Amino acid sequence: MLKREKRPLGDHFGLTNFGVNLTKLFPGGESALLHRHSKQDEFIYILEGRPTLVTDEGDIDLEPGMCAGFPAAGRAHHLINRTAADVVYIEIGDRSPGDEDSYPADDIQAKMAAPGRWIFTRKDGTPYG
Amino acid sequence: MLKREKRPLGDHFGLTNFGVNLTKLFPGGESALLHRHSKQDEFIYILEGRPTLVTDEGDIDLEPGMCAGFPAAGRAHHLINRTAADVVYIEIGDRSPGDEDSYPADDIQAKMAAPGRWIFTRKDGTPYG
Repeated sequence: MLKREKRPLGDHFGLTNFGVNLTKLFPGGESALLHRHSKQDEFIYILEGRPTLVTDEGDIDLEPGMCAGFPAAGRAHHLINRTAADVVYIEIGDRSPGDEDSYPADDIQAKMAAPGRWIFTRKDGTPYG
Repeated sequence: MLKREKRPLGDHFGLTNFGVNLTKLFPGGESALLHRHSKQDEFIYILEGRPTLVTDEGDIDLEPGMCAGFPAAGRAHHLINRTAADVVYIEIGDRSPGDEDSYPADDIQAKMAAPGRWIFTRKDGTPYG
């Protein structure tokens, strides 16, 4: 995730119920691993560039002014920048207590320890490293 | 609120934890009455135009790329388009149960009856009309 830059916008104003990031994907960058949340809804709005939305049901090319939403327990998804130009988008996710992430393509799981704080382990619960 | 147009984006994807609208204010338009929420956090991101953010602690002129967040029980606020050009912005608000709106400058109160559904009355609880 070195080709990704996140600026937390919502925290700056003291918002706690949901997070808002202004996120930049450099060429080759990815938003996250392919994932879905158990309780958290997510929403993205593209401001610049043309990322590819990769889901477990296929890929969709996005452009500025397009948006996508991911209801809890829905389609697994992530964004990839396959272009030579930067991608900039707004991402919003609520902070529902007890949320868990699942990653169909990778040996990782995530549980929310506190609002906005995540613990990542292998799928068998053992720690990394 | 005739000079305002809201396109619900989040509902389209089946999101329930928060709402996302793409909102347009025509010249002279207002986002809402001056208000604050008891439990809901709000966030706006300006895409087009130059609205004025009016709060109970003063006014701020905004422009594309600027954002503002309003934590629950914080500053009362609304956006006014005092220009001759349209204003377009994204607004996000969570749907915390039991949320109430208060309007310091108007005889109106609002209580959330169900997620995203509001009942508006006078401040003494009597209905309008």
